[in-house]
Amino acid sequence: MVRMSRVLPLSGFPEWSPQERIVEAHVVRELRRVFELHGFGEIETRAVEPVARLSGDSEAAKEIYTLGRLNAEADADAKLGLHFDLTVPFARYVEERQGQVQFPFRRYQIQKVWRGERPQEGRYREFYQADIDVVGRDQLPAHLEVEVAVVMARALAALPIPAVTMHVNNRKLVEAFYRGVGVSDVSGALRSVDKLAKIGPEGVAKELAAQGVSETASDAVLALAAIKSSDVGFVEAINDLWETSTLSPGFEEHQVALAEGIAALTALVSGVNAAVPGCAVADLRIARGLEYYTGSVYEAFVEGHEDLGSICSGGRYDSLVGGGGFPGVGLSVGVSRLVGRIIAAGLATATRSVPSAVLVAVVEEEARGASAAIADRLRARGIPTEVSPNAAKFGKQIQYADRRGIPFVWFPGDGADGEVKDIRSGEQVVADAGSWEPPAEDIRARVVPG
Amino acid sequence: MVRMSRVLPLSGFPEWSPQERIVEAHVVRELRRVFELHGFGEIETRAVEPVARLSGDSEAAKEIYTLGRLNAEADADAKLGLHFDLTVPFARYVEERQGQVQFPFRRYQIQKVWRGERPQEGRYREFYQADIDVVGRDQLPAHLEVEVAVVMARALAALPIPAVTMHVNNRKLVEAFYRGVGVSDVSGALRSVDKLAKIGPEGVAKELAAQGVSETASDAVLALAAIKSSDVGFVEAINDLWETSTLSPGFEEHQVALAEGIAALTALVSGVNAAVPGCAVADLRIARGLEYYTGSVYEAFVEGHEDLGSICSGGRYDSLVGGGGFPGVGLSVGVSRLVGRIIAAGLATATRSVPSAVLVAVVEEEARGASAAIADRLRARGIPTEVSPNAAKFGKQIQYADRRGIPFVWFPGDGADGEVKDIRSGEQVVADAGSWEPPAEDIRARVVPG
Repeated sequence: MVRMSRVLPLSGFPEWSPQERIVEAHVVRELRRVFELHGFGEIETRAVEPVARLSGDSEAAKEIYTLGRLNAEADADAKLGLHFDLTVPFARYVEERQGQVQFPFRRYQIQKVWRGERPQEGRYREFYQADIDVVGRDQLPAHLEVEVAVVMARALAALPIPAVTMHVNNRKLVEAFYRGVGVSDVSGALRSVDKLAKIGPEGVAKELAAQGVSETASDAVLALAAIKSSDVGFVEAINDLWETSTLSPGFEEHQVALAEGIAALTALVSGVNAAVPGCAVADLRIARGLEYYTGSVYEAFVEGHEDLGSICSGGRYDSLVGGGGFPGVGLSVGVSRLVGRIIAAGLATATRSVPSAVLVAVVEEEARGASAAIADRLRARGIPTEVSPNAAKFGKQIQYADRRGIPFVWFPGDGADGEVKDIRSGEQVVADAGSWEPPAEDIRARVVPG
Repeated sequence: MVRMSRVLPLSGFPEWSPQERIVEAHVVRELRRVFELHGFGEIETRAVEPVARLSGDSEAAKEIYTLGRLNAEADADAKLGLHFDLTVPFARYVEERQGQVQFPFRRYQIQKVWRGERPQEGRYREFYQADIDVVGRDQLPAHLEVEVAVVMARALAALPIPAVTMHVNNRKLVEAFYRGVGVSDVSGALRSVDKLAKIGPEGVAKELAAQGVSETASDAVLALAAIKSSDVGFVEAINDLWETSTLSPGFEEHQVALAEGIAALTALVSGVNAAVPGCAVADLRIARGLEYYTGSVYEAFVEGHEDLGSICSGGRYDSLVGGGGFPGVGLSVGVSRLVGRIIAAGLATATRSVPSAVLVAVVEEEARGASAAIADRLRARGIPTEVSPNAAKFGKQIQYADRRGIPFVWFPGDGADGEVKDIRSGEQVVADAGSWEPPAEDIRARVVPG
């Protein structure tokens, strides 16, 4: 049907076995469930955008997959590329539909994205992302910065992974502090602090010096980045640091913004920890290099799997689109990286490789209709069932079920419906297909700790 | 956040509003539910395949989107293209995993595919397909040709569309008949008969003549194609035609295959109609030009929407992969075309545009916590709930709910939980957030006839 050519797995394009796909589908379903429980509606956007739009963010431009056509007139579809995140298409979607969308617009989006990363970096080139955002028209209340973090913390807590810690910070706070201690290029300083884990405090200090930041200011910036607390302890630490730092002339004008930022971060840490105890950590080193964040910023890590890096991040931004006027706040999860780790580390597994809870055996080919009728009576009550593809010896048919993890085999009887066997325990009982129920936990393939 | 560039809808890349997306998600969920109820497990394959593999089927080659990289070393990802169906990637998946997969392998797959069609043809260039197949190793029992059709008929019957008619035929039957009446180029004749609707009997006769088919054979071929019955009436019609036709020397050797084909088609029509009454029609003109079909062939149409063409098709094939050894049978639905029609023709609609069943009003910003606590108690019982983004006058908050179709607004009270209002009827009752339930049909956005 398909002509042969060498079969080569493509590095960076993950594909799961049927049993692993059950785990992935479970993760997607749980995210979806929690998002919808909190009133987030779903959208899907097309996979392609004009390259001009995609490459607006020049950092990512080199990773864009562009589209061409085989044997087509040149330029027929020139200038289209695959989206590399869900933010660019969401911004375009909102811009296109600003007359129809109800603001504030709460949406979630779970789709594949593509990045032409170098395969040797071991990164995915095709992967699922899951985003939630709330976007306003002209204004967006600050309490939504707490709410999206709470929703995401709950969604991540529903997944079969160890505890997630959400490291949070506030751009307003950091900016006010930096200006107060005399840093003029705040963006530059943020970009350097963002590299703290990579290059260490000395490396950051060196970069700051190169940016013309004084040594005392640089010390203060690094001291701020060292503050971390899982409760409101950070407040005192920042206030102490502020009082003992050498402040620049005119520092008073930043004092109000600093207090506002501290209050916002306090509300965020308390709010998230009230919803998912122990989840939020105020971490003043979280900078997130991207310039468009203006309030809360988030970066989440999985306990014991910090090597994965941040598995979920985001923040508050002043406008979703370049023209302004659409302030929002959002978080994005790297779903495939999580699923890849769940599978590779055996954190969770599906109880079987197929949906079927029951295999109805076939006594002889001529009696296939009787088996099919039993299967239909089970299906009518929502029990996933398949009929044996052949009328082999019962031992063979049991083996068919066993290899797929199907827990029950139904043997049709003469006249009556017959008997059903739990092939794990060997227990076999006379049963009626119109009323027999497997234990609730056996009806569907479940995802359980590995 | 994203630099501005002109926003242009792209022809052929459909995108739905949040309310329309609920309809699409419902269609996907129903297909998935019925497939899993019948024991089909899900796989997802990567979006890309080597172009050499995709273009094996040269007919589709011109529609392939190839991938390039912006600002990358030339050829870094050369020779990858987006899949244009789910059969090519499924074949590659089975080939790659033939040592791990359990045969017969029952799988479903619901993913987007891409085709670089000319936009002026008004066809989608990105769309969802949903495929089911059962693939064996070396052999595959014929009864599965009935089973996959039954499963698909049931899945289509679960969708919010008018009745679907599945036109079925059998390649063995047709081939035996053609050979019996003296057609030597069976594939050529099939390709011509496949154009019957487009070019009419005269056009087909002309093509057959050009292929060297005699006039009496051509008449017989066209007479066979005219046979159609929603019951087993076609059997007598074929037998009559066979007996009155001028048969070629050596016709006896095709008589057994003809009888086998008739028996298979009889089983198929009866089986599908027993499961979904009135769904199957034996239609001897169904040819399906693709050469790899060797048994049952299927083409399904939506009553009153025949202009959509076949919305689901497939058949039995001797091998999924070019090397042979993987016989299978499968059907594929064009999901996006169905959804597009459901939306455009108003066949169904979602009861609201957001998941939320309840909006909890906020009395004053300082009391937001009380509203959030009520929302959490509702969510704990699975009721999708959101909290008003502001503490505007209640009239404004009700308007917020009304615009999104949220049926209930909860007004927190002093001390007690407060009252909940059905904003459609105006009815308002005192309620406890730990026990109040909306009517079952209001808990989730539902898809109802338009």
